[in-house]
Amino acid sequence: MAGHFITFEGIDGSGKSTQARLLADALRAEGRDVVLTREPGGSKGADEIRRLLLEGDPDRWSAETEILLFTAARRDHLERLIEPALAAGKIVICDRFADSTRMYQGLSRGNLRAKVDALHALMIGREPDLTVLIDMDPATGLTRAKGRNGHEERFEDFGVELQAQMRAGFLALAEEFAPRFRLIDGARDMESVARDVMACLREALA
Amino acid sequence: MAGHFITFEGIDGSGKSTQARLLADALRAEGRDVVLTREPGGSKGADEIRRLLLEGDPDRWSAETEILLFTAARRDHLERLIEPALAAGKIVICDRFADSTRMYQGLSRGNLRAKVDALHALMIGREPDLTVLIDMDPATGLTRAKGRNGHEERFEDFGVELQAQMRAGFLALAEEFAPRFRLIDGARDMESVARDVMACLREALA
Repeated sequence: MAGHFITFEGIDGSGKSTQARLLADALRAEGRDVVLTREPGGSKGADEIRRLLLEGDPDRWSAETEILLFTAARRDHLERLIEPALAAGKIVICDRFADSTRMYQGLSRGNLRAKVDALHALMIGREPDLTVLIDMDPATGLTRAKGRNGHEERFEDFGVELQAQMRAGFLALAEEFAPRFRLIDGARDMESVARDVMACLREALA
Repeated sequence: MAGHFITFEGIDGSGKSTQARLLADALRAEGRDVVLTREPGGSKGADEIRRLLLEGDPDRWSAETEILLFTAARRDHLERLIEPALAAGKIVICDRFADSTRMYQGLSRGNLRAKVDALHALMIGREPDLTVLIDMDPATGLTRAKGRNGHEERFEDFGVELQAQMRAGFLALAEEFAPRFRLIDGARDMESVARDVMACLREALA
């Protein structure tokens, strides 16, 4: 039996990581075999590449080098964790995947979407079965993201204007890849959002 | 004035690194502005990626992830060191470049030459003005390479059969890219080889 590959996308502070975890917990409580993971990273090698990407000077990599490193990390993650789990019939839930690269590197850092797409087609190929986009007002998202502690700040110091651009970019991706995207309003209490996520998933698994 | 981009290629133990250094010394003694560098690595970021590539378990990366990491390191090296030096009219001498990836990852690890070429066209583009291939008997090369000390062993523990395959691969590349390749017999004393390298360079610079 083939597994299911579910990804969560959204701007920082949208609550997508929390929702990914809640979904994994709920499915496990039903006895499902679930692998919860996240990008960048998710496998031993990919986590080492993640450190190169998220630590240090904001200008340490050009946009082009950055998408090569993201793609290298994704390839390792896919080969070592995601594909074997799917082949074993498991549900893989991944916090961010290729849509984040399409958005952040393809849109905000230069206009590299064509290069991002070519690299994806050449070295990755895999798309999720279902992508849950947690939509969120940029100002609220930014306040939430800045309230967290963390040393991996390279990609979070954006400001509300750029966050608004990112939100618009994710909404455009949801239209472009409409068959696999589900849009969920993240500006409500955690439980309501989780209920909607679960409803999407039941529909997808049915 | 545009600079000149010279690369050295060959199997391990062929003496190419020594010859690259001797050429740099000789050109500097003539008052030329020379940048001597090597791959993988050559810039701050690329050197960090180099550590991921050369240290650790031989199977830590798949061939596909490996060529993505090599290409990421090359892109950084090109942007931060090679292109600025060429734009300033300098002579850049690089110990290994894209031909090594065409050879080692394109040939020996799976049959990935098509992917290597597509990645190069998409993210690198630049070819050397001149490539010096130091040709060497595989058994002699292996003895020389094993006589060196070094912690970066991931790519050197090949055995003579694989070294012979690599040599043949480099010779095939020299035919494929004949206009920029010069073949030099490395199985002689260092000074004779250096004299031939310098003769190639004078012809190329003329």
